Amino acid sequence: MKITTPTLLIDKEKALRNISRMVEKARRNKVRLRPHFKTHQSVQVGEWFREFGVEAITVSSVRMARYFAYHGWRDILVAFPANVRELESINELASRIKLHLVAVNPETVTALAKGLQHPVQLSVKIDTGYHRTGIPATNYAELDALLKLIQGQEKLQFAGFVVHDGHTYKQTDAAAIHAIFNNSVTQLNQLRERYKADFPNLQRSLGDTPSCSIVEDLQGLEEIRPGNFVFYDLTQQHIGSCSFEDIAVCMACPVVAKHPDRGEIILYGGSVHFSKDVLLQQEDAPLFGRVVELTENGWSEPLEGIAVVSLSQEHGVVRASPEHFAKYNIGDLMYVLPVHSCLTADLRKATSPRKASRSSTCRACRSGS
Amino acid sequence: MKITTPTLLIDKEKALRNISRMVEKARRNKVRLRPHFKTHQSVQVGEWFREFGVEAITVSSVRMARYFAYHGWRDILVAFPANVRELESINELASRIKLHLVAVNPETVTALAKGLQHPVQLSVKIDTGYHRTGIPATNYAELDALLKLIQGQEKLQFAGFVVHDGHTYKQTDAAAIHAIFNNSVTQLNQLRERYKADFPNLQRSLGDTPSCSIVEDLQGLEEIRPGNFVFYDLTQQHIGSCSFEDIAVCMACPVVAKHPDRGEIILYGGSVHFSKDVLLQQEDAPLFGRVVELTENGWSEPLEGIAVVSLSQEHGVVRASPEHFAKYNIGDLMYVLPVHSCLTADLRKATSPRKASRSSTCRACRSGS
Repeated sequence: MKITTPTLLIDKEKALRNISRMVEKARRNKVRLRPHFKTHQSVQVGEWFREFGVEAITVSSVRMARYFAYHGWRDILVAFPANVRELESINELASRIKLHLVAVNPETVTALAKGLQHPVQLSVKIDTGYHRTGIPATNYAELDALLKLIQGQEKLQFAGFVVHDGHTYKQTDAAAIHAIFNNSVTQLNQLRERYKADFPNLQRSLGDTPSCSIVEDLQGLEEIRPGNFVFYDLTQQHIGSCSFEDIAVCMACPVVAKHPDRGEIILYGGSVHFSKDVLLQQEDAPLFGRVVELTENGWSEPLEGIAVVSLSQEHGVVRASPEHFAKYNIGDLMYVLPVHSCLTADLRKATSPRKASRSSTCRACRSGS
Repeated sequence: MKITTPTLLIDKEKALRNISRMVEKARRNKVRLRPHFKTHQSVQVGEWFREFGVEAITVSSVRMARYFAYHGWRDILVAFPANVRELESINELASRIKLHLVAVNPETVTALAKGLQHPVQLSVKIDTGYHRTGIPATNYAELDALLKLIQGQEKLQFAGFVVHDGHTYKQTDAAAIHAIFNNSVTQLNQLRERYKADFPNLQRSLGDTPSCSIVEDLQGLEEIRPGNFVFYDLTQQHIGSCSFEDIAVCMACPVVAKHPDRGEIILYGGSVHFSKDVLLQQEDAPLFGRVVELTENGWSEPLEGIAVVSLSQEHGVVRASPEHFAKYNIGDLMYVLPVHSCLTADLRKATSPRKASRSSTCRACRSGS
């Protein structure tokens, strides 16, 4: 099928390799892999996980949980502070799947206890250093009170503690990521020691892709919830979670204008397609995407001397060396690795990966449509 | 209807006032108002324009053109360098509406001339200083050649010159915006003088909301194409295009967690709902949205001491003074004016404005659903 508008291509072989590697790591460490599906939000990509034996998943909204429940997933964690305004949908879901929710505040627990008609698993979100949300791991008074409150509720089954170390996304040093991970596991272990008498089966669950990609020894956890690793992206490569060749998504964007005077090429492909995430690399200009070429079996590593340097709503501006500039004509497709695949996939979720028009053997086509 | 998830509210009365003001300004100046519909992408909001006699519109993609053509619009400009990979859709559209396209490069003109089956209006994009795309207004050799090429094509009717002064978005000084506008009109006038013998009806068309809002005398133009003005947003208020009370959209976001230790409230409402646009104001932290309260007939001006200070994919982090912090409970809605309404409306286009639950007389409900 001919690509006419900005289109996300998925290299299925790379995605399967990324899944396989994480599944193996989880098996080796005897932890449950509960992958986050917000990255792809695709039933089809979900099936790739199922083939590896994955049965439990993570999502970030009740709406996404409903979508995957509708497509046969029966064990779903909504890894977001429970939104008590959605009790009706929560009840509907809890009536037919094993639903896991997350709480931070006692008010949430009270509202759930009052409104739930079916049992749900409830985890408490712990803040081990990211400081977005969650209870600090040593706020024992607060935690004691919250767990006691949960324990008294018929419809709430305390499942354990969930952590998301979003601060690993700011690192580019494997040692720093190991340190953050170890610090979190230490805090989770202390919590387990404190509460295991009352809750012998409590789970310690941790979620970020950098830690789950870089750390090999996952001792001290029962569950990991990485999401981005199925596709990876330029941000993860910059962090060190993956190499360029692990990046399994690429945007195909039509070339719509050329400016030889300043070596700039205008793509149909802007912030509504890519999100406005930017990669700020040392010594370099802000980066919104890197250009690759299709090869016989996928795409190349990023080219030097050509990159997406700015985005507006529908326009992508590419700065190119004279050699690269000369290669692209109006109406050609340019292939761009995204800075953040979660948002790119979310924004483009309506677009199925399609057979790339320039290469009949591109592996992207194997993902079907 | 009860709001359960992040929902865009539209104050129809404010939007109608914004439309009315721009319609009147265009009439007074005898220029055509061809509003940009990418801001709202809504058939219903489009009908509000139709009631004011607007018949010609601007969109930013062929897909959007098809959508509005399907809903009865018959004169549509796709204000984006023509994407020649979409010739099939372009031909289909050109067979039934008055379609206007834009070109920057001769290759585009040649490809259109070869592939078009029905006549289209073609404008040339001029760069008067924004430097995203377009031909610099004094590149006469390039322009002469391009216009000559267009003139020879049976299916292409040269319509004139289009300009988008995106650099007005970086200004906060009305004098600077007047200067940018006057500079563009001067360049358009020079072009008209040069080419009017061959093209006596050529149109001079200019598009940014700051100029169209702030400048009163539009002499020297045949057409204006502002879009954002129907809703406005915090960015436009910061520029000086509007006052707070002109902002006609507001996001309703559920409160999902509270952190009393640091005065932070977590909203269900993140970059997938708001876009990641940020307003960098002098002396202040980055701003992703400002909080208002519902009133009897709409919403208040932004509150001091409470604002959205960061966004991740689904989380909005609000920093609040102790007084504000105490007012919001888990499960409440918080109302947030967006930094950029175009992207906010685009991301939320699937969500109809709904009756707000806290105020039965909120004007937002008048926009229906």
